[in-house]
Amino acid sequence: MTKKVAGGDEIALFYEYLRFSSISADPAQASVMQSCAEWMSLLLQKWGMQVEIHTTKGAPIIFARSEHQQGKPTLLLYGHYDVQPAEPLNLWLSPPFEPEIREGMIYARGATDNKGQTFSHLLGLRELLVHGTLPVNVLVLLDGEEEIGSPNMKEYLEEHQEALSCDAILISDTSMIAPGKPALTLGFRGIACFDVIVQGPRADLHSGIFGGAASNPALALSKVLSRMITEDGGVAIPRFYEGCLPVPAQELESWQRLPWDEAWFEKATGIAPRGGERNCSVLERVWGRPTAEINGITSGYQGNGSKTIIPSSASAKLSCRLVPGQDSEAIAALVKDWIEKELEKEGVTGMVIYDHGGEPFYTSPDNAFIQVAIAVTENLFGMPPALTREGLSIPAAVMLQKILQVPVIMLGLGLPDCQAHAPNESYPLAHLDLGAAFFQKFTAEIATM
Amino acid sequence: MTKKVAGGDEIALFYEYLRFSSISADPAQASVMQSCAEWMSLLLQKWGMQVEIHTTKGAPIIFARSEHQQGKPTLLLYGHYDVQPAEPLNLWLSPPFEPEIREGMIYARGATDNKGQTFSHLLGLRELLVHGTLPVNVLVLLDGEEEIGSPNMKEYLEEHQEALSCDAILISDTSMIAPGKPALTLGFRGIACFDVIVQGPRADLHSGIFGGAASNPALALSKVLSRMITEDGGVAIPRFYEGCLPVPAQELESWQRLPWDEAWFEKATGIAPRGGERNCSVLERVWGRPTAEINGITSGYQGNGSKTIIPSSASAKLSCRLVPGQDSEAIAALVKDWIEKELEKEGVTGMVIYDHGGEPFYTSPDNAFIQVAIAVTENLFGMPPALTREGLSIPAAVMLQKILQVPVIMLGLGLPDCQAHAPNESYPLAHLDLGAAFFQKFTAEIATM
Repeated sequence: MTKKVAGGDEIALFYEYLRFSSISADPAQASVMQSCAEWMSLLLQKWGMQVEIHTTKGAPIIFARSEHQQGKPTLLLYGHYDVQPAEPLNLWLSPPFEPEIREGMIYARGATDNKGQTFSHLLGLRELLVHGTLPVNVLVLLDGEEEIGSPNMKEYLEEHQEALSCDAILISDTSMIAPGKPALTLGFRGIACFDVIVQGPRADLHSGIFGGAASNPALALSKVLSRMITEDGGVAIPRFYEGCLPVPAQELESWQRLPWDEAWFEKATGIAPRGGERNCSVLERVWGRPTAEINGITSGYQGNGSKTIIPSSASAKLSCRLVPGQDSEAIAALVKDWIEKELEKEGVTGMVIYDHGGEPFYTSPDNAFIQVAIAVTENLFGMPPALTREGLSIPAAVMLQKILQVPVIMLGLGLPDCQAHAPNESYPLAHLDLGAAFFQKFTAEIATM
Repeated sequence: MTKKVAGGDEIALFYEYLRFSSISADPAQASVMQSCAEWMSLLLQKWGMQVEIHTTKGAPIIFARSEHQQGKPTLLLYGHYDVQPAEPLNLWLSPPFEPEIREGMIYARGATDNKGQTFSHLLGLRELLVHGTLPVNVLVLLDGEEEIGSPNMKEYLEEHQEALSCDAILISDTSMIAPGKPALTLGFRGIACFDVIVQGPRADLHSGIFGGAASNPALALSKVLSRMITEDGGVAIPRFYEGCLPVPAQELESWQRLPWDEAWFEKATGIAPRGGERNCSVLERVWGRPTAEINGITSGYQGNGSKTIIPSSASAKLSCRLVPGQDSEAIAALVKDWIEKELEKEGVTGMVIYDHGGEPFYTSPDNAFIQVAIAVTENLFGMPPALTREGLSIPAAVMLQKILQVPVIMLGLGLPDCQAHAPNESYPLAHLDLGAAFFQKFTAEIATM
């Protein structure tokens, strides 16, 4: 059994880390991003690592490495020190950047996403570096722009591919099933986001004078968006599903044993899970199947009372979630082409603008490092981890896998109700020790491989 | 030939009238409404009429009558002294409440709608009262709330039915075909306005986590709104067309001779008239056929970039234009029932709120007063008036016809490009004389009936 590492000093250190309002989306926090990166670099240096702060067009990337041990495996720990904006501030019970412990949970923006989860592993690393022996080579890569899609990471990874060379990647930026019930995430969906703009009459028209003869852009847009989804809840765009890899039967089966069912969904959302493909389970629909979703739609008058106009334009925000086997650029081309042609059929001029995309991700559990992670997790929790997926994306994980071509181990250390991205984000104090213990056990095991 | 009545003094008087910022929609103008009503009342009194200012919950109603001549027909002139708001102010070339003449047009808010058109007739009335002999009985009814739907007029008309008793009603609040080309409006469409609200998940959902299983309210709304309109451009709601009176063949035929074709539509709107029922002409679609129109639609994220959510709600503003034979309350019930049931089929909870309605209107040209109006117009312009309809409504005209049960003569004195409701509203100076001449000739003719 590893000893507890998170005493008062470590919590004080964690508090210091959480106090940085390192919001990557807010240009006003640029100097905080820099201070936070410097603070973390000094810490890792103090523990005996060689650290570089890599300047980017945005927030710096921190890269640290332990003294090289020839012949030992190399583990890359990826995390991010940037956080989501804290708004709406009035909903926080304690200020987002003044951490507070209540009933065993540390409340602060970034507590679970991702400062806490990464810091847990770092405490394990410190224990080995300062009070023990680190049995493997460790690389630490801390992103400062994860929350804005890691726009500068790809270039960094490509330029530093050799220095980043490793045998496995460890990321804790996901969630456990429930307290005490661990999860390893094997995959997540990619994304492709679009703006659709439909042009109608030159200006809003009086519906009394022109109504009946003028084409209505809101109607045309509604018709096309309706046709995008089939009666069975699937995506109607031809070739959309081409190449989609099915979820392996074993995984699908294991999902049936997870405590995430219709009741869970209804409790979390307020609605029954009636959307999407009729013939798939809820978890398959959110983890293993692609979607085309309306994220927003706008046209004409939206104020109080009525304004009897034919709107001069209509627009929508769309996004597709993608699964392994799909490619965001290829899907973007299909979607753009189909929607523009369908709008043309409606007699209106429309334009689809591809905003951005991210690739889907999947790591097969059939490799030694993931099998070790599963065994260590089982040993630590007294039960094997659920092998899950997530519907959302960690862009850097995709890039790391693609460029470094090694297994990615995603161990969830957060809890489903830790409120990542929301007010009153928290992290269980006990998970600092849990992550530290995992890191020590896992490195000890892979050292013998 | 009647002599010119609009000299410098009359134009100065018209200027005074136009300077009142009598915007009925703006509560801040309540005292201006009162001053304007008093100014007009004093004027009519000075010309020899008995005038009452009737206080309502909103703006006052002005009612004036000439000295009663037993055995002579009674003509009721309806108009309104309230105007539309003047916004956007920056688009006016001269201030909206400081009249200015440029190239024969008087520019001011209310110039054509409706101060100018009514004032033209009043100048004819003054000529007869002050310098000649009024050969019939004349009632003048001036509304102060036409632009907000005449909410207090119905009660007034019902209470004063006897005093308002007349043989015909004259209204000039519409438009000519073109300069020199007169029009008599026989009908206009009614309206029924709705809010549709669709409830989705309790809050916006992360489309990565829940997308694929959550029903999307924007999709459900789009589907139902799409189904509301058939492939042929008609309204799909069962029984929607029940009772609709067809446009008489003679009228339809006469519309074919009007200079309003596809090119006119395209010039006015920037789009070809491709909306609505495929098998009807453009004019039949905008004047003689009912519609169901999306006036606005809102759901989810509408800002820059993307926000990958499933919106928690979606809503739309709808309005139906109604034709003679349809009833706004009955249509409201059909629409509400159909949309709510269709939303239910989509697995979402939706609600349709009926906002307000107005009845369609039609006066048959087969009566002596309208025939005289046609003859007088022909004599005045050298060509018979086109018998048109309008797509929009004058609520008080419907009430007057319903309560007083007499023919309503709607002679357009405005021009299509007078910019009613828009910046730089104007009225041709020469039409003051034109209206005055019509009034004198028309009263002379009906005096002999």
